Amino acid sequence: MQFSRPRGTRDFLPEEMARRRYVEKVMRETFESYGYREIQTPVFESLELIAAKSGEDIVKHLYSFKDKSGRSLALRPELTLPVMRLYINELQRKPKPIKLYYFENCFRYEEPQAGRYREFWQAGIELIGTSYPEGEAEVIAIAVEVLEKLGLKDFELHIGSIGILRKILRESGVKEKEQGKILHLIDKGEREKLENLLKKLKISGENKRILLGILNLSGEKKEVVSKARELLKGRAALEEIEKFESILRFLDLKVQKYSLNLGIARGLDYYSGTVFEIYANRLGAQKQICGGGAYSLAGMLGGEETPTCGFAFGFDRVMLALEAEKEMNIDSKTHVLVVPVSESLLGDAVKISSIIRKSASCELDLMRRKLGRALAYANSEGIPFVVIVGDEELAKGCVTLRDMKTGEQKEIKLSELERIGEKL
Amino acid sequence: MQFSRPRGTRDFLPEEMARRRYVEKVMRETFESYGYREIQTPVFESLELIAAKSGEDIVKHLYSFKDKSGRSLALRPELTLPVMRLYINELQRKPKPIKLYYFENCFRYEEPQAGRYREFWQAGIELIGTSYPEGEAEVIAIAVEVLEKLGLKDFELHIGSIGILRKILRESGVKEKEQGKILHLIDKGEREKLENLLKKLKISGENKRILLGILNLSGEKKEVVSKARELLKGRAALEEIEKFESILRFLDLKVQKYSLNLGIARGLDYYSGTVFEIYANRLGAQKQICGGGAYSLAGMLGGEETPTCGFAFGFDRVMLALEAEKEMNIDSKTHVLVVPVSESLLGDAVKISSIIRKSASCELDLMRRKLGRALAYANSEGIPFVVIVGDEELAKGCVTLRDMKTGEQKEIKLSELERIGEKL
Repeated sequence: MQFSRPRGTRDFLPEEMARRRYVEKVMRETFESYGYREIQTPVFESLELIAAKSGEDIVKHLYSFKDKSGRSLALRPELTLPVMRLYINELQRKPKPIKLYYFENCFRYEEPQAGRYREFWQAGIELIGTSYPEGEAEVIAIAVEVLEKLGLKDFELHIGSIGILRKILRESGVKEKEQGKILHLIDKGEREKLENLLKKLKISGENKRILLGILNLSGEKKEVVSKARELLKGRAALEEIEKFESILRFLDLKVQKYSLNLGIARGLDYYSGTVFEIYANRLGAQKQICGGGAYSLAGMLGGEETPTCGFAFGFDRVMLALEAEKEMNIDSKTHVLVVPVSESLLGDAVKISSIIRKSASCELDLMRRKLGRALAYANSEGIPFVVIVGDEELAKGCVTLRDMKTGEQKEIKLSELERIGEKL
Repeated sequence: MQFSRPRGTRDFLPEEMARRRYVEKVMRETFESYGYREIQTPVFESLELIAAKSGEDIVKHLYSFKDKSGRSLALRPELTLPVMRLYINELQRKPKPIKLYYFENCFRYEEPQAGRYREFWQAGIELIGTSYPEGEAEVIAIAVEVLEKLGLKDFELHIGSIGILRKILRESGVKEKEQGKILHLIDKGEREKLENLLKKLKISGENKRILLGILNLSGEKKEVVSKARELLKGRAALEEIEKFESILRFLDLKVQKYSLNLGIARGLDYYSGTVFEIYANRLGAQKQICGGGAYSLAGMLGGEETPTCGFAFGFDRVMLALEAEKEMNIDSKTHVLVVPVSESLLGDAVKISSIIRKSASCELDLMRRKLGRALAYANSEGIPFVVIVGDEELAKGCVTLRDMKTGEQKEIKLSELERIGEKL
């Protein structure tokens, strides 16, 4: 019988893998250029950790199980919780800020569809220990810089503020736990359920009007900010707008195009300040390719409270967005195929391959093909050069180099092989 | 409350992670130089696949669970089975040979100890579709080349042949399934249980003498081969020795130092031909850092039978072996810290940081530290250069560059900042 891979998961073949590694490399290099450094956490965490602080929607879709000693574990559904768990366990005493990045797979048991998989990858950063606006602005700018470096054209950055929403709710007497429920309904766009919950919580008409008014504000910065200031006149939430504006002032130094959307609430319980999402509209329902913002988790996880912000790319969706815009040709092919014209020359061919590998990727033909079939193989695999090892040439200290594109052949000295990669 | 990571797993902090990524890079580059290309499979597979063909010892230590729709899944305990599952699903029709490599985490619920973790990494290659001796020899040579490139000094390559053992057992009338049990006992070094099983299977005294005689052969090539030839005179297993010798002849072209050990049986059920293990003796009980050989899996997994061989590095153990031999200093530090002397210069500092990042990794001080404290921070973090942004210098189109090692400061033009990384 044959076996198939589990539903909702993927196998990555070499060409796709090469494209993914290229995109990963651009992300890593960008993160590192800002002083972020990589960490890695286990694929599974204690269920207790994950369940305690993930949004309801995530907990419902966990892969959880007990290990052989009865411990309840869950495959990580995202990385921020594990990274903050690591921070509290290992890095709390280090000088601030701490700048961490990760590139890892996550797991959610959801109905598979385009852009939604049960195993998916996230690449992200966390900035820990500073709440200055230039820090939060830098985090947003890094996300945009990655996409620009990748050459993605069609994307939109939307910025909101859960800080403003929470402040309004706090002023209306809504407790932390209920705030989470309200933000969750806002995130899901469930307006009717939201209104019912506001009614149940006995929010005053005035507070409700302000909240819903803020949620509806979106568009260009100047207009959104002035309308929000008007709505919040004389209220504590006004200071959140000022903080918000100072972040945007720093952001303006690096990012030209973005929209404000004060209705963004994110799906996770721990967001507390400025939040942002990036959409690649061509992807339709699964258009969100990045999300992040300022959050409060260290205290909730038993550590000392400290300001934090970060983001995660939905790596698979970034790949989909890039591939929808342009063909990505990442060279990962072998450069040279070495073919001995007879079996007696195999030993020489082994040695010649070793020399070529000092400067180029090189395959020795391992099928003992005749020359004609070996050339056909190189052609079908897109290997651009073939080195033919023959008795006569070898006696002169040479081999034959064939350019598969032009069909041109020439003799080259063995002593030149070591640096052949520089010439191909 | 605080949360801890699950027992037997690890968090990797930035410095360790940088060392791991460096070693991974050397492995990748070596595999790719031989024309191997990367693939990736899901973290979990159907339990059926894993349980069907893994050795008994592995099945006992699986992390297995049911997903929300009742599918039985297991976290992969190794990569060869998933890679061959992928090959059968996706690549069977491609021209041979197919050369695949992987770098992935695996999971076994075992008692944690030095060099043994519940989540661990394997890096390996699979050569599919050829059984010529130069192919098998190349696979072994690649493993050695990786370790040499990494600068590991103290390791031993041991080569055996399950092909010879299986041939003897087949000639003695032992069925496939029983062969697996016998090989398993050989692998574990359980001589008493082995003798009991041989007795139970009614192996003749002569066959038993030959088997045990072969198992005891180890050491230098010439001697081992001639003793084996003597023991197997007139038997079908003799042709396995000839195949074995022709692999070694090709290996000799690339690898100088190895021992033969015909008692190597590997822990997995699917090995069928030449096998090898590499030991880093300093690691004690967990000294095996690499294992591989020729195996038969395609047919067992419902595909067309095809010759295959490969190996996997125990990546974590390679790291331990390297770290036991020498200090690994992998530079992953930020190169430049940018510090404005007053808040009013923050905007300029943001822009200057962006310019520096074109050629060097650069952190803007995000804590609004005073100059003295910023310099102390750079010192403690090992950041070698600080760019100080001051009003007077900026008015002249300059900033101050401080070399933290010498304490030397000099003014440099903004126009030079773009390529500053080349000079540091």
